[in-house]
Amino acid sequence: MALIIIAHPNFSNSVGNKTIIDELQKSDLELEFRNLHDLYSDFKIDIDAEQEALLRHQTIVFQFPFFWCNVPAMLKHWFDTVLAYQFAYGSEGDKLKGKNFLPSFTAGSLEDAYKPLGTHHYRISEYCKSIEHIAYFVQMNYIEPIYFHGSVHHYTEQTVKELAKNHSERLIKKLQELG
Amino acid sequence: MALIIIAHPNFSNSVGNKTIIDELQKSDLELEFRNLHDLYSDFKIDIDAEQEALLRHQTIVFQFPFFWCNVPAMLKHWFDTVLAYQFAYGSEGDKLKGKNFLPSFTAGSLEDAYKPLGTHHYRISEYCKSIEHIAYFVQMNYIEPIYFHGSVHHYTEQTVKELAKNHSERLIKKLQELG
Repeated sequence: MALIIIAHPNFSNSVGNKTIIDELQKSDLELEFRNLHDLYSDFKIDIDAEQEALLRHQTIVFQFPFFWCNVPAMLKHWFDTVLAYQFAYGSEGDKLKGKNFLPSFTAGSLEDAYKPLGTHHYRISEYCKSIEHIAYFVQMNYIEPIYFHGSVHHYTEQTVKELAKNHSERLIKKLQELG
Repeated sequence: MALIIIAHPNFSNSVGNKTIIDELQKSDLELEFRNLHDLYSDFKIDIDAEQEALLRHQTIVFQFPFFWCNVPAMLKHWFDTVLAYQFAYGSEGDKLKGKNFLPSFTAGSLEDAYKPLGTHHYRISEYCKSIEHIAYFVQMNYIEPIYFHGSVHHYTEQTVKELAKNHSERLIKKLQELG
């Protein structure tokens, strides 16, 4: 049904991202999970295997923590290598055309931080433009990101778990809608 | 005088980025070059060595090609690991305060592509927001990026070299101004 690409350099110790994935695994959705740091701790991505996985699914979810208001390095490495010329773009590069592209992430700071007077100055959607552009360029349908705020240092672990469970409910609903 | 961080996965075959670096090396500026892919082909960045290099300089130049309207994965990995808590940010993380942060990059497409009706939809400055935010967050002075358009497939190699030489002249002038 959907492919879940996980990019977190310290996934097993994460609260937000791990809770979201745990909840997805408990759901009755048919999902394939690919944890990039487990698969490629040396950053040597198996491009063929990743492209074959993409071809098996209609919806691709990218699960990650916002790092420096951007995707983590491993996910950028995946974009840089797997979304290759004549596969994802170029005159014959239409293999991802029409598939759904769904970013799903945790934002460390509280919502006010992502405003002009806040620590991060710009809204989350501003920071997502380069991600959105990728979806357009490879002819995928960009689905509005699902995320929650405050995953780092702002709440107790229990509160982050609750926010992550709420996140996973929204994500599961969206995946059911996308079919 | 300045530290030049180079992030290009295929630097020796690049035209734009290599020409810019060649011109910098021919200049009489006092520069330290760190080619991340040469130093860390396995993505295992020596964080202490990188932080020590940063402490030696007042101006840091990041030289890279725009990949997916964003920094290449290796530079993101450098941001994710070297700009660490209590070094670059946090209650005691002021080691980069007041230093200059200067992005210097090549953009593959022509200028019109980075407009609403173009292939990339948003202007270059929109895509630089996450880079700019990093500079603010680590208390560095963000210097307006130096870049040129059309480094991929749009011009002959000779024309790209000329654009890159013009780029390096602007970069050298800026470095002289920054002192």
